[in-house]
Amino acid sequence: MSAGRTTAVLVVGAIGMLTWSLLASADSGGTIAFPTEYRAWAHVKSVVVGPQSQAFATEAGIHHIYANDKALEGYRTGAFPDGSMVVYDLLETNEVPGNIIEGAQRRIDVMVKDSQRYRATGGWDFARSSPDNRTNGSIPADRKANRVACHSKSGDYGFSEFRK
Amino acid sequence: MSAGRTTAVLVVGAIGMLTWSLLASADSGGTIAFPTEYRAWAHVKSVVVGPQSQAFATEAGIHHIYANDKALEGYRTGAFPDGSMVVYDLLETNEVPGNIIEGAQRRIDVMVKDSQRYRATGGWDFARSSPDNRTNGSIPADRKANRVACHSKSGDYGFSEFRK
Repeated sequence: MSAGRTTAVLVVGAIGMLTWSLLASADSGGTIAFPTEYRAWAHVKSVVVGPQSQAFATEAGIHHIYANDKALEGYRTGAFPDGSMVVYDLLETNEVPGNIIEGAQRRIDVMVKDSQRYRATGGWDFARSSPDNRTNGSIPADRKANRVACHSKSGDYGFSEFRK
Repeated sequence: MSAGRTTAVLVVGAIGMLTWSLLASADSGGTIAFPTEYRAWAHVKSVVVGPQSQAFATEAGIHHIYANDKALEGYRTGAFPDGSMVVYDLLETNEVPGNIIEGAQRRIDVMVKDSQRYRATGGWDFARSSPDNRTNGSIPADRKANRVACHSKSGDYGFSEFRK
């Protein structure tokens, strides 16, 4: 193994086997492996979607956005490096007198950045997982096209700004 | 410097200078230094406190709970090691048609664990920071007593369970 190859392997190790397996499976099977460690990632923001929202039919509840280390760098600099992953975690809500609290998980959407592999979709791929399938996720091509159109409205496909 | 001393210094380095300075300042001045890196910590949960809530007068808005690595271990195992820090980040809310979104920050409360130093208060100390004071925080003794009484109702003073 050359020094360069060793360095590359070490860099992959530093990014995390999670990222590596995610990209690998996206490449081979059109799905994205479930990012099992996302609950320890940085929290970008949260939104509660209520009955009066246009998005209520599909997005009802509270959603949290999480970013891995590379995506966090993207939120901070405005440019998302390859390997960036962003999770949209949608939960039901429950009301206890006057308070809205988190309920059961509804689904998870994942975005992953690879500027070359996903060149046709702005450098990002998208997948969706239901709570009962935490091994991998996929998303139909038409919905993927919608997501690309939607996210491309903001800078480098990011969801939002990162609150300091 | 002895090997033991070197090891101790390295361990302090691994925990993070943030924790060290926080404990040091808590020891010397009765205040806790603002944990500037908390936005990259793990997100435990969020709650929206509305007008009908008993807590509305002081807790109106959306609050997020964040845990540093040691506190995350505590949430996962049920026992919070010394050096655990938990942040309660309270934000105003704004309504855009049908959605509740995050507004300006109202304040931050910090809990820090040191089983020996804060033995009299169950091993935890508490502090409060306003958005315009991000250098350190403190909390009056009577309010601190209330917090101890309140948090001691749950296991090892934790706020809540960590959602997987």
